[in-house]
Amino acid sequence: MKRKIYLDMHSLEDAQNIFHNTFANYSIGAESINARNSYDRITAEPVIANFSSPAFHGAAMDGFAVIAEETFTASDDFPLTLDIQNSQAIPINTGYPLPADKNAVIMVEHVILSENHSQATIRAPVFPWQNVRKAGEDIIATELLFPTNHRISPPDIGALLTAGCPEVKVWKKPHVTIIPTGSELVHISPTNHQLEQGKTVESNSAVLAAMAQKSGAETLISPIISDDYNTIKDNLLKAVHSKTDIVIINAGSSAGSADYTASVIKELGEVLVHGVTIMPGKPTILGIIDQKPVVGNPGYPVSAIISFENFVIPFLKRIQGVPNNRVQTTTAILAKNIPSRGGIEEFRRMITGKIGNQLITVPVKKGAGAITTMTRANSMLRIPASSEGIVKHSQVSLELLRPLPHVERTLICTGSHDLCLDVIRDFLNTSTPSFPLASTHVGSLGGIMAIKEKMTHIAGSHLLDPQTGEYNISYIKRFLKDTDVTLITLTHRQQGFMVLPGNPKNIKSTKDLTKDNVTFINRQAGSGTRVLFDYELDKVNLDSDEINGYENEEYTHMAVAVSVLSGKADAGLGIMAAAKALKLDFIPLTEERYDLVIPSSFLQLDNIRQMLDIINKKEFKEKIAAMGGYSVRETGNQIIV
Amino acid sequence: MKRKIYLDMHSLEDAQNIFHNTFANYSIGAESINARNSYDRITAEPVIANFSSPAFHGAAMDGFAVIAEETFTASDDFPLTLDIQNSQAIPINTGYPLPADKNAVIMVEHVILSENHSQATIRAPVFPWQNVRKAGEDIIATELLFPTNHRISPPDIGALLTAGCPEVKVWKKPHVTIIPTGSELVHISPTNHQLEQGKTVESNSAVLAAMAQKSGAETLISPIISDDYNTIKDNLLKAVHSKTDIVIINAGSSAGSADYTASVIKELGEVLVHGVTIMPGKPTILGIIDQKPVVGNPGYPVSAIISFENFVIPFLKRIQGVPNNRVQTTTAILAKNIPSRGGIEEFRRMITGKIGNQLITVPVKKGAGAITTMTRANSMLRIPASSEGIVKHSQVSLELLRPLPHVERTLICTGSHDLCLDVIRDFLNTSTPSFPLASTHVGSLGGIMAIKEKMTHIAGSHLLDPQTGEYNISYIKRFLKDTDVTLITLTHRQQGFMVLPGNPKNIKSTKDLTKDNVTFINRQAGSGTRVLFDYELDKVNLDSDEINGYENEEYTHMAVAVSVLSGKADAGLGIMAAAKALKLDFIPLTEERYDLVIPSSFLQLDNIRQMLDIINKKEFKEKIAAMGGYSVRETGNQIIV
Repeated sequence: MKRKIYLDMHSLEDAQNIFHNTFANYSIGAESINARNSYDRITAEPVIANFSSPAFHGAAMDGFAVIAEETFTASDDFPLTLDIQNSQAIPINTGYPLPADKNAVIMVEHVILSENHSQATIRAPVFPWQNVRKAGEDIIATELLFPTNHRISPPDIGALLTAGCPEVKVWKKPHVTIIPTGSELVHISPTNHQLEQGKTVESNSAVLAAMAQKSGAETLISPIISDDYNTIKDNLLKAVHSKTDIVIINAGSSAGSADYTASVIKELGEVLVHGVTIMPGKPTILGIIDQKPVVGNPGYPVSAIISFENFVIPFLKRIQGVPNNRVQTTTAILAKNIPSRGGIEEFRRMITGKIGNQLITVPVKKGAGAITTMTRANSMLRIPASSEGIVKHSQVSLELLRPLPHVERTLICTGSHDLCLDVIRDFLNTSTPSFPLASTHVGSLGGIMAIKEKMTHIAGSHLLDPQTGEYNISYIKRFLKDTDVTLITLTHRQQGFMVLPGNPKNIKSTKDLTKDNVTFINRQAGSGTRVLFDYELDKVNLDSDEINGYENEEYTHMAVAVSVLSGKADAGLGIMAAAKALKLDFIPLTEERYDLVIPSSFLQLDNIRQMLDIINKKEFKEKIAAMGGYSVRETGNQIIV
Repeated sequence: MKRKIYLDMHSLEDAQNIFHNTFANYSIGAESINARNSYDRITAEPVIANFSSPAFHGAAMDGFAVIAEETFTASDDFPLTLDIQNSQAIPINTGYPLPADKNAVIMVEHVILSENHSQATIRAPVFPWQNVRKAGEDIIATELLFPTNHRISPPDIGALLTAGCPEVKVWKKPHVTIIPTGSELVHISPTNHQLEQGKTVESNSAVLAAMAQKSGAETLISPIISDDYNTIKDNLLKAVHSKTDIVIINAGSSAGSADYTASVIKELGEVLVHGVTIMPGKPTILGIIDQKPVVGNPGYPVSAIISFENFVIPFLKRIQGVPNNRVQTTTAILAKNIPSRGGIEEFRRMITGKIGNQLITVPVKKGAGAITTMTRANSMLRIPASSEGIVKHSQVSLELLRPLPHVERTLICTGSHDLCLDVIRDFLNTSTPSFPLASTHVGSLGGIMAIKEKMTHIAGSHLLDPQTGEYNISYIKRFLKDTDVTLITLTHRQQGFMVLPGNPKNIKSTKDLTKDNVTFINRQAGSGTRVLFDYELDKVNLDSDEINGYENEEYTHMAVAVSVLSGKADAGLGIMAAAKALKLDFIPLTEERYDLVIPSSFLQLDNIRQMLDIINKKEFKEKIAAMGGYSVRETGNQIIV
């Protein structure tokens, strides 16, 4: 165990420049390929036309080839008859060469033929070269078809072939070798997908390989190697000397006791950068061994992606002649304060959607280890090193992770989470038209506040009013005085105690929680489940002091279930689905109503209408009812607020 | 030869609906694939997590595992020492499981170790679960990872593996069969690239195949078949009964005498649509044979692309579960009037760039047969059937053919064309940063007018003032009174007579053009070359009446060269490069100056600065000088206007 000492820490920009300059002259070389297979490749030299096109003057229409000057007298009053037999007018099909002495084509629609097809009568003249595609009209031999570093699109292939360029010189595809390291890592595969206790599924190599392939590279993933200095050294050296343009070693790039990557690179070559002031992605190593770039990539999945995106992808693009344009950006209004550490450039994953006429963006939780922060996000916010955070309602610039039309169609749901929202998400994504649903989980009251601040389309809420026994209405009246909202029931669901399989502490009612050997795990204040629990305590005249563990809070049903499963607590209140997910037993306590709160002005939005249609569908209700713990008897009903 | 009769003509929307509805239930089926290879595939069912992640409570940092409550008294004033030997503090690396009785990790950086590493001293407490990644923090088994019809991104692969989903069910890739038909068509290949007189290079099949591949399909291109009813019938039937999801027959889809496609489909199945009111793309056939879609695609390359894009691509997307979102659009100001035929939806290819703060868009010339109208364009304008055109300066909505950042970086050059602009284009595309150059050819005066109207970045001009013998300056003073422009010399170039090889009519000077057996081909009024020719006539006291063919005009150097090559004329005035392109002889007459006109306010733009840098580069000048007919003695000089 040692302190982390990064050998050579740099800002993102400095590190990128060092890497770029070190390999500025790295060349991957070009290859000639068949133009028919050149889609999406990049030209390595200017492409010059060999043929002109059309190669000859040809008919642009089906009709008759004529000498234009001979038709000049034709009019409605004085129709003109041309002789077909002596070739004054010659039948011709589109694309065929114009006879040598002709200079125009009369469209077949404008001709009246004599019965024996020997004569053609016209009522209007044609001008010289009318309906003729002249030689070289499209392409002239020797002209520049495409400059160097041009990405070949499907129509470009047509131009290449037409211009007599059956071969085209393009940059070779770069080769990327990825070495996964880590004694704790295991592969899972379709035939082997059990996970040993304490082991971690190796997934970064597949993610990085797909990213490299997306940038045009070919990839090789080595077998997993253990965290051992000599093993790393041997494998790295072998990879550097193979047919590869860059070697990625993932991970061991940090500065912990088992992080050998930097030392190995230092022994075999040179460490250019160790540590970059970005988050996630700090433990990045940029090095060189025998003229080849070697990158030590962090182990946390999000760190690995951000580091790869900022160092490896630009390198792969440059050696293929692709300009490293920034990804597409857009501006949005920030829905929450985001604090950030000064001195570190932070990459926050965001969920963005269009509320009213504006894009609104909500941060996904942090966590370099949580790959779903990457997969749930549709956009990214960079917070510069000079900033200590960005305040709510600021206008920010976002990098898009999904196309803008996708982002703009996204339905945002904030508030309490329920599995029924996942079912809506699936139905929405398969409906015509389809819409993405993105949900952020901040509890029922958080959702209602997001509605108030116009930062969400819908809020999921199950807030019981202990005075009335009613759900949601009194909270809406109190917090959404100035907003006209519509309240629609999504489902009734059972809440109950989650306990270990077999219910070892024999918990059957709220009263059982007061037993000496029982520890409870609670939900956070403001959550619907917490309100419900307090209500239940009140009903049986229990005081919160009598519940051991009442003060320990978790933020989601699932976190409560994990607490129970890991033995930290003996029971927690939550929904049946959470218990089922972790194979816990579920002791039903009561039923509650879970509603959707929607600003009434949004009811005509396409995505909201589609969602409401879905909720009222028979297939949807059947699916919910089949999950267990849910009732759909009032699903889709509008509640009068 | 017969009149064109489309069997069943429809609007684009109607035709799309008919096609969509006929095959609404066409299903391609799903397949299970290895998640590691699932990049860019589309999920065919909801994907549910099998594992939770992390699978255990683990260290989020390198450090020491402790019971948080035992650290609460630590402070700067009262440091706390924990015993390592009796496991009060246990060394732990990032990612490793937390020992069962511990609930927090102290970062190694915050610990002072005793010399024998038996004790750890801290000056601040940790709170419960600090620096711990809790089980299920990222993914909970049973949660929805991705809905149906979700396109798998690289990070998504990480989520699949981490969640214990080594296999994922995705929609199969559709199979597309393309049958090129046409007796005039020939293949060219790297080993066979001569073109027989009157033949046309087959290129559409490769273009359509690349488009289908871009949409995720696998493609099979049949050998070229001739325009023969029974041949088409046999091959079509064979294709329909093969392992394919759609058959494209290209072309013969029009209604000319050799257009059999519609009749064949009618005999074998049903023609749903014949003829769509779009331009290009009208001769489209949509049909069904034995439950399978059959599309007769037009023969002209641009028509083929537009038709395929509007019918085949949406079908391919739908059967793969991909929403058929419109391509990305942007708005721009139209630089020219565009007339359009009512009753026909027109697709105009456009060149768009950013002038000042606005996108400006210029139509590329029409021509369904000219593939370069597609490859030169970076955007597309749809003119609805209800419109008879759009007036200059209107704001229009464009579909992007290249990414928006590419479009916004585009340098627009309007005016007279010169091959040196192609060299600039190539240098610009390989510079760092790189910029695309798009040029439209409207003659010198047209370029100056485009500058006046702020519709171009630069204008290429070689306008001689016959009074002063000077170039460009008097025109700028006259037409650009209100615009501060900078004039920069690009090159001096030779103008001369282009004649057939061997100069059969022995043309050596302007006077020789008056010979009885000599026909001249002229350039259009307003072009620099026309002004120059008139000036030369004046110098030798010739009247235009004395030149046979003076009244025949062409619009480009290349068109003049084609006229001479085809024997329509014996001589034309133009640049040496045009003569060389068509292997004509070139009789030098005089030298002229070709300048770039740039609004001075643009001189600080990145793309203009890059271009000016290039013009002053030694390599650039050497390249120009080597082309022949050019002098670079004043290249890059600024002319005082």
